[in-house]
Amino acid sequence: MSLFINADRLYDSIMEIGKIGETEKGGSCRLALTDLDKQARDLLAAWCKKLGCKLIVDQMGNMFFRIKGKDNSLPPIGMGSHLDTQPSGGKYDGVFGVMSALEVLRTLHENNIQTESPIELINWTNEEGSRFAPCMIGSGVYTGKHSLEEGLNCKDNEGKLLGEELKRIGYSGDSMIKPNLKAYIEPHIEQGPILEDEQKSIGIVLGALGQKWYDLEITGLEAHAGPTPMHLRKDALLGAIKIIDAVNRIAQKYKPDGRGTVGELKIYPNSRNVIPGSVLMSIDIRHSQADILDFMEAELKEVILVVSDSMKLKMKLTNVTQFPNVNFNKICIDAVRQSADKLGYSHMNIVSGAGHDAVFVSDVVPTAMIFIPCKDGISHNEIEFASKEDIEKGCNILLHTILKLDKTEI
Amino acid sequence: MSLFINADRLYDSIMEIGKIGETEKGGSCRLALTDLDKQARDLLAAWCKKLGCKLIVDQMGNMFFRIKGKDNSLPPIGMGSHLDTQPSGGKYDGVFGVMSALEVLRTLHENNIQTESPIELINWTNEEGSRFAPCMIGSGVYTGKHSLEEGLNCKDNEGKLLGEELKRIGYSGDSMIKPNLKAYIEPHIEQGPILEDEQKSIGIVLGALGQKWYDLEITGLEAHAGPTPMHLRKDALLGAIKIIDAVNRIAQKYKPDGRGTVGELKIYPNSRNVIPGSVLMSIDIRHSQADILDFMEAELKEVILVVSDSMKLKMKLTNVTQFPNVNFNKICIDAVRQSADKLGYSHMNIVSGAGHDAVFVSDVVPTAMIFIPCKDGISHNEIEFASKEDIEKGCNILLHTILKLDKTEI
Repeated sequence: MSLFINADRLYDSIMEIGKIGETEKGGSCRLALTDLDKQARDLLAAWCKKLGCKLIVDQMGNMFFRIKGKDNSLPPIGMGSHLDTQPSGGKYDGVFGVMSALEVLRTLHENNIQTESPIELINWTNEEGSRFAPCMIGSGVYTGKHSLEEGLNCKDNEGKLLGEELKRIGYSGDSMIKPNLKAYIEPHIEQGPILEDEQKSIGIVLGALGQKWYDLEITGLEAHAGPTPMHLRKDALLGAIKIIDAVNRIAQKYKPDGRGTVGELKIYPNSRNVIPGSVLMSIDIRHSQADILDFMEAELKEVILVVSDSMKLKMKLTNVTQFPNVNFNKICIDAVRQSADKLGYSHMNIVSGAGHDAVFVSDVVPTAMIFIPCKDGISHNEIEFASKEDIEKGCNILLHTILKLDKTEI
Repeated sequence: MSLFINADRLYDSIMEIGKIGETEKGGSCRLALTDLDKQARDLLAAWCKKLGCKLIVDQMGNMFFRIKGKDNSLPPIGMGSHLDTQPSGGKYDGVFGVMSALEVLRTLHENNIQTESPIELINWTNEEGSRFAPCMIGSGVYTGKHSLEEGLNCKDNEGKLLGEELKRIGYSGDSMIKPNLKAYIEPHIEQGPILEDEQKSIGIVLGALGQKWYDLEITGLEAHAGPTPMHLRKDALLGAIKIIDAVNRIAQKYKPDGRGTVGELKIYPNSRNVIPGSVLMSIDIRHSQADILDFMEAELKEVILVVSDSMKLKMKLTNVTQFPNVNFNKICIDAVRQSADKLGYSHMNIVSGAGHDAVFVSDVVPTAMIFIPCKDGISHNEIEFASKEDIEKGCNILLHTILKLDKTEI
């Protein structure tokens, strides 16, 4: 008969962490390296101590709780996520992953199961990026995406340094740890509406979308809305709507993984009876496959040329940033899928549209993620919600994935 | 042989008024009822005094300079415009009309021509509305669109009252004058690009566009741009672009007088990687014919219903304000056209898209306007420009229109 986690204990732990920085509307405000973050870290450390874990904190404040395996010369298998939240964050983003990892350790402990490899629960520092930009700086330094110096010198709005704040709350370690994991599995709420819409409990995360971010500046000629007839206008907004339409059309063309969004838009002079002279807007396109993302970019650029030319508007496209698409490790993905099959949970393949510590970690360690649904796809919001049933299933998948990987050569 | 105005004298007067409040870039900043406005009024009064004009100032500070006719029991024929400017205004908007009226008086005076009716040069108070809202408050009170109390209690940004400022600069009269004009003719720069585009010197203004102004609020669902696939989005901006497109299409359908503009637009939360949850935008539609403007409104409302329904977005349209279309007086319009024909100037019919004192005055007095081209259609800007040649032609048309109306029964 299969081994199962204790759903009540897991749920209670999520709720208990959630009380630290709890907001009026039932969410959590627990910014990285605040006193509240320290409280949550301390509570996690106390819980892990009861299980006999050894805690190592690195120079970025990333916490590695290790339980021994039968052969401690083997690289450990990692699992976890983050305990920091957005300013008006929910109770599940990040916390679900860390508490599931804790529940796996508790389940192994109470059943006297010793794995072959050591197992590590990991809590990454400042995933959200709400207090210290950039986001995922803890896993970013761990994986070499950012230097330690960059990490320690991140400043919050008040000018406080991340490195100083780590010392202040007592979570500044002596050195960085070289990525030495056999595998890393991160359970997380989906932060999107797909699993709910498809009525699946488990998302088997194949990787993360590649992203290209741009700014587009459109220049026409501002003029009085009354005396200027339609055929003599150079309305920058009329150019903008053609580009917005194209961004949407291009993303639709490459579904289901294509995304295209104009999230920021300002028009000038933004006066009721003046024809817009210029528009500044963001463009964000994403896809799981690098070559398709390149097609999307080429199509976007072609549309901009054609519209600019036909409407006699100046258009200037600037690259803001880009993130390559990430493919998770096939053996880790298969371990997640086999666990879902074994436990009989409904599941589907999914690609993460957002960033996660696992996306960085996958660069240096065989990695996969487990998604569970969140209500209406809402996250980064106090009303963020995941059902107890889905939380239980997600954690059971983590348990069985870890056990499977422990016995698998990667 | 025809009588002509003195183009050099007219041009020099425009330039001399323009020096009062002259800006670095060659425009004028002469806000209503400032010391600079007083200087310009004083200069105008001094010039008119030399012609033997009698000045009457009403309680709104509107200035009426009268020269006698042969029969002073006849209602006077009015002509003029305004001397106040926008904060970074040009040298021609308003001033061209007042100085042309002055040049007509000078031409009659030096040629010893006495008209049948008295003639009045009028300088209206606070046409621009830059210092005291609303605009056209001087002619607005004169024509009963606003009460005297409303007019006198207009406040500037510093809380100063229009009535007090009138007293301070010495232009507060004892009473209002009942609209008693036989006719009113206002020369003005076009403030649009049509005459220039059609290479005509004179615009025979048939009236003013009716206007309907709205706010439209579109509500979708904000969501993370990464994890939310295209088919599960409720992107308020994608609804907005359909409405903006429709506003443009509807205006194009009813050209040449149809106008449709979205000049103000804000999206929320306006964050690069968040799908816009709501959009707030203005809609401005205009037409010269009331029934067509009603059709345009009906079509707009139909599109909003259809788009709202098909895209599952909430759309709330609110009326902000409306101005009925205005038809100028046929006899006055004909007098302008006959003058243009007689003098052999190129001309075309045109409809004013913007507001003018003449639009208010036309409600109570037979009225017409004379437009001359302004470069690139630009006004309310220091680079505003009208050629000396067009200024001369516009003023000659004013002279002959006044002489024609003097001999015509209205």
